[in-house]
Amino acid sequence: MTVSNTLPHPLAPLSEAEILRARDTILKQHGASDSLYFRCIYLNEPAKAELVPFLELEHAGKLTESTPRPPRQARVEYDVLTPSKHHHIRTVVDLKASQVVSSDTAAQKAYPSYSPEEFNDFQDACVASELFQKAMSEFALPENFKVIIDPWPYGGPDDAEDPDRYMQGLVFAVDSSKKNPDSNHYGYPIPIIPVMDWVSKKIVRVDRLATGGAEDGLEPEAKAASPKKLFQNNAPAEYVPELLDIPLRNDLKPINITQPEGASFTVHPDGLIEWQKWRFRIVFTPREAAVLHDVTYENRPIVYRLSYSELTVPYGDPRPPFHRKQAFDFGDGGIGRAANNLELGCDCLGAIHYMDSILPSPDGTPTAAKSVVCLHEQDNGILWKHTNFRTNRAVVTRNREFVVQFIATLANYEYIFAYKFDLAGGITVETRATGIVSVVSIDEGKTSKYGNVVAPGILAQNHQHIFAVRIDPAIDSYTDTQVVVEESISKKIDPKTNPYGNYYEVQRQQVDKPRWIDAEPRLNRVLKLENSTKKNSISGKNVGYKFILPSTQMLVADDDSVHARRARYAQHNMWVTGYRDGEFWVAGEFTNQSRKETDGVDDMVRRGDWFTDEAPNGQDQESKGKKSTPVLWGIFGLTHNPRVEDWPVMPVEIHQMHLRPADFFTFNPALDVPSTKNAASVLVPCCSNGEASKATEQDKPLSHLQGSGKEIDAQAAGASVTNGKTE
Amino acid sequence: MTVSNTLPHPLAPLSEAEILRARDTILKQHGASDSLYFRCIYLNEPAKAELVPFLELEHAGKLTESTPRPPRQARVEYDVLTPSKHHHIRTVVDLKASQVVSSDTAAQKAYPSYSPEEFNDFQDACVASELFQKAMSEFALPENFKVIIDPWPYGGPDDAEDPDRYMQGLVFAVDSSKKNPDSNHYGYPIPIIPVMDWVSKKIVRVDRLATGGAEDGLEPEAKAASPKKLFQNNAPAEYVPELLDIPLRNDLKPINITQPEGASFTVHPDGLIEWQKWRFRIVFTPREAAVLHDVTYENRPIVYRLSYSELTVPYGDPRPPFHRKQAFDFGDGGIGRAANNLELGCDCLGAIHYMDSILPSPDGTPTAAKSVVCLHEQDNGILWKHTNFRTNRAVVTRNREFVVQFIATLANYEYIFAYKFDLAGGITVETRATGIVSVVSIDEGKTSKYGNVVAPGILAQNHQHIFAVRIDPAIDSYTDTQVVVEESISKKIDPKTNPYGNYYEVQRQQVDKPRWIDAEPRLNRVLKLENSTKKNSISGKNVGYKFILPSTQMLVADDDSVHARRARYAQHNMWVTGYRDGEFWVAGEFTNQSRKETDGVDDMVRRGDWFTDEAPNGQDQESKGKKSTPVLWGIFGLTHNPRVEDWPVMPVEIHQMHLRPADFFTFNPALDVPSTKNAASVLVPCCSNGEASKATEQDKPLSHLQGSGKEIDAQAAGASVTNGKTE
Repeated sequence: MTVSNTLPHPLAPLSEAEILRARDTILKQHGASDSLYFRCIYLNEPAKAELVPFLELEHAGKLTESTPRPPRQARVEYDVLTPSKHHHIRTVVDLKASQVVSSDTAAQKAYPSYSPEEFNDFQDACVASELFQKAMSEFALPENFKVIIDPWPYGGPDDAEDPDRYMQGLVFAVDSSKKNPDSNHYGYPIPIIPVMDWVSKKIVRVDRLATGGAEDGLEPEAKAASPKKLFQNNAPAEYVPELLDIPLRNDLKPINITQPEGASFTVHPDGLIEWQKWRFRIVFTPREAAVLHDVTYENRPIVYRLSYSELTVPYGDPRPPFHRKQAFDFGDGGIGRAANNLELGCDCLGAIHYMDSILPSPDGTPTAAKSVVCLHEQDNGILWKHTNFRTNRAVVTRNREFVVQFIATLANYEYIFAYKFDLAGGITVETRATGIVSVVSIDEGKTSKYGNVVAPGILAQNHQHIFAVRIDPAIDSYTDTQVVVEESISKKIDPKTNPYGNYYEVQRQQVDKPRWIDAEPRLNRVLKLENSTKKNSISGKNVGYKFILPSTQMLVADDDSVHARRARYAQHNMWVTGYRDGEFWVAGEFTNQSRKETDGVDDMVRRGDWFTDEAPNGQDQESKGKKSTPVLWGIFGLTHNPRVEDWPVMPVEIHQMHLRPADFFTFNPALDVPSTKNAASVLVPCCSNGEASKATEQDKPLSHLQGSGKEIDAQAAGASVTNGKTE
Repeated sequence: MTVSNTLPHPLAPLSEAEILRARDTILKQHGASDSLYFRCIYLNEPAKAELVPFLELEHAGKLTESTPRPPRQARVEYDVLTPSKHHHIRTVVDLKASQVVSSDTAAQKAYPSYSPEEFNDFQDACVASELFQKAMSEFALPENFKVIIDPWPYGGPDDAEDPDRYMQGLVFAVDSSKKNPDSNHYGYPIPIIPVMDWVSKKIVRVDRLATGGAEDGLEPEAKAASPKKLFQNNAPAEYVPELLDIPLRNDLKPINITQPEGASFTVHPDGLIEWQKWRFRIVFTPREAAVLHDVTYENRPIVYRLSYSELTVPYGDPRPPFHRKQAFDFGDGGIGRAANNLELGCDCLGAIHYMDSILPSPDGTPTAAKSVVCLHEQDNGILWKHTNFRTNRAVVTRNREFVVQFIATLANYEYIFAYKFDLAGGITVETRATGIVSVVSIDEGKTSKYGNVVAPGILAQNHQHIFAVRIDPAIDSYTDTQVVVEESISKKIDPKTNPYGNYYEVQRQQVDKPRWIDAEPRLNRVLKLENSTKKNSISGKNVGYKFILPSTQMLVADDDSVHARRARYAQHNMWVTGYRDGEFWVAGEFTNQSRKETDGVDDMVRRGDWFTDEAPNGQDQESKGKKSTPVLWGIFGLTHNPRVEDWPVMPVEIHQMHLRPADFFTFNPALDVPSTKNAASVLVPCCSNGEASKATEQDKPLSHLQGSGKEIDAQAAGASVTNGKTE
């Protein structure tokens, strides 16, 4: 498949040398007097129009050394720091010429995401702040408790304010007498939120928080005459095993998953992955973590690019300043930057490959991001089965999956993201939400309609997590994909067409221009991604894939709220927009402290690109769109009204969306999966405590179902016989 | 847990001796002249009022030999055969006294389910039928093709007809030249449906089928002058490996799942299962297969009885007689009777326990149903994780599940049912639909709006599968469960209560009398099963479980159709009804050839039992209900418009519903799960083809996330210190 070629594949991640070359190019642009802060240096993906001809040649096996290739480019995002102002600059560097190809400065109030290093500045600013010390003086902490602060993005500014770039912090205490740096501070929230000016690095304000119950109003409590004693009844919220005050289970016997003959996948150094009939490339980006490119099955393209785009987490507590708890975990932080270094035998079981990546330090030098993606195979039960009830012969195959997994930590919270490929041509996109729910103080004995008391003194606020997945489809072609909305519609009894009332109509509507589409399970509404010209040779229908989305609640915040204005994407389950190079951000590129979604999916709809030969007639004629190809955005989420069981660390909440072939193949693509009996399985007898007997062939089961196995000779049945002597 | 006791537990399945005693008791009731046909002999479950006191003593550890116990009873269902009529009789036999306690004869047109043995009668009747032979004479089959018939229930009779008990058959041919009894006949449908009178065992009619395309109307084609040549272009639809004309994959390397220290569960001979903190009993019934009883966690009851209740499969092809393709797989057939004999290493991997059951032969003697349920543990990814971003220390636990699985074959089709228990107090009820889709003939080159052409000459008709799960809850008590509908409701901006618009209200409405409730993901509607009196000591809320249902399309058939009248249950996602002993059937006991749902969930709602101290006021005051406790029915399904990929055997379509604790516990019940690193996992290096290296400790990853780890001394931060010297 891969051509022996000294040049990197156009989708290969930047090498260390390339990152350094990009950095040097930028440094040269600026004088020695400019102080630069590098945020990201990563592959600038080729324009689709340039990459597609290359991919087509690649899949046709026609690549040569002289095949034209898209220029190799780096995207470098950095700040120029001056005492009074920070300019955020986005550049594209041509790596061959070591030249800046394009450069622009972000608008006045468009702020890039925070880097992990900037989080530390916040705590330093608090320590140095008289305002902060004054606020803290209102509280008395138990002996040996130390203060610890989780920096957060500021959320959306109120309409009345016009702040420069701010950062806020949630303040906690930790019991240092435990002498364990992993003692959980989230069990001890302190009811203030300091706000820092990000340029001056000064605390400009400390907001006091309400700590009352359901009927205590929205205002913070009045300042007490003497320091309020905190944590009088709070309980430890430990989760690291050595600090637990309950014994660990000792009766969970190990499950080992082994592949004695090795794994069935191949990882190439340039990010190309091969597993079974699947082939795709992984590019790790600072914002999206693992992005899948050029996903093909038996060399037929299915998805040009598959990625998570955004995740907003708005909180439902109306008491100011809690309304500013609305994070955009991709745009404000970055999932790649927050990706965990995964561990063998913990995050994945079996035979695992770990992928590393490279992220820049603030000075632009590459640093290793080790084991940020894991790849492995797993068994997921039965894939298909049929038992012939006449002979009792069963044929069963196992549902083997290939998993691309990465995990991000965003202060208190964890997300486990996975792309799963199966043997039947399906792709599943999975999220698992876990970690520690965000909590605030609540006065003893009180309860709140804004959340749940999950431990004494601890209110876990109601909130939502709304995920967006971006699918740039390429259904059996890089250029000819169409999107169709399909519904199964009930029909009334009609003597001519539906005499008994059991008929239902499968209705199709092609999406000819950008729009949103809400989930409607009552109509079995599904989106189909189809090749607009190629027909399935069996069914005569367009070859395609079905898009199956969990039907979940969308953003509940009021339409007029700043929360909704910043996350229009989160108001509908599916969006179809027109492809343009580099548009990966459902809520816009700059979500950090945004007041509204800018150049997000809602704007892409408004500009009215179209997918047919000519712009469709209708009310959108005034739009300035252009002919394009459709990109699909799948939105799903979790309205999380916390349970007591979510404390101190929550069990995973799992969501899955699926791409499944629908007339893409000419028969079940998993028909050739062997129905091999697994020899390592053993019997557990009755009445033992798990003592497994050695694997033995089971007795031939006595069947209560054994049929007669009778067939009727066609002629005996009355039929004549064709193609034979008796015809 | 179990008392040493010579008496069987009240929920222990009947022994062979008990089955024989029940049979003998019935035989004695009848003279030698009566010809009896036994359909089922199984445990007559004790009345709840009698069982609950026993269970309460059992869980309190207070059972003794003299504890009063419910009488041990068998339920015997059998027919009395006379030449002109079959009476279906349902009796309860007291096994101690060997006496019939109750007996009643089913109403005139209430028909029990078919036994597997009766299926064979149908084919014999066809062979003997001149009508059938005449119908077959219209067709010419290729040489060596033999006829094979799948008996089906007759579906719902048309309003215009008043048939006695009928059975219909789908007719296929099989290529006997392959000399393989597992050659797939479903690839060769013959366009007739013979109808048999079930008492006389005579074919009374042979319906001819339409074979046209989208525009060819509803009538069967006119009879041709000479026999129509069938299967001129049909292709083999083989799935058994030795008949495939494509090579099997040889690059799927084995995944072995082993438990070197044995399994973590215990199976007792009377059906009691213990796994981790879970404890429950499995009773296998002819209709429901595995039923779970008395499900407890740490000895606290959660579910009194958990079972699948029904599954209807209506087809959407309006061309008569296809409208009679509507099966009720529990009521017309019986999932226990149709349960597969499961195989080690195929249907389950790892360390597996297989449960056997006993089913009666038509003469009432017990026959073994071997390995009809499998029990095993499996790993399902990460259960919870948190990484302290300051220290980079991660704590991860694995999501171990305990699975109770059974699989039923209903002629062409398979269902894989599973109950899964997890370490965090959750129960998942899962279905996987697989097997061979039901197909009919379609003329060459045509396509249809009634289904999809999945192979030349083969139309897979659009249809639905609508499952019903019955949950008889016992939330921390066998008697005090209440059901609450909870929704998360958007609120407009309001200066006093919601100044920024981010607040949403969690609204609760108690279900005080039977009703249906539709899914409404837009409102995040969930049902909560709660103890009506016990409060969670942390949150102050009622201890409870959340019921999470996939939001799927309900029955699409017209409200006035016989299909909808027979399956009112399938028109709404959730139903809550009043508990009465022995009411297990969502669509009524007798679904076979039913015209309407009788004593099903819709009738249970109409009768108006109530769940509060007094009957609620309102329009239902005239109802004749009584005070009861709520039973929950969860309905979900699959509108299956077949894909070409579903042929010849379809990859699984998976649905899951969940019961998750919601303030049932006082913290995450999986907090005590060890975060043990699995030692059997190995690294797969880059660029190898699956060659796994020996497990080695990974290098300490270079962290790009390492925080400063700084904590601030409380006094340095400005706070005073309580409980300490400085206060």
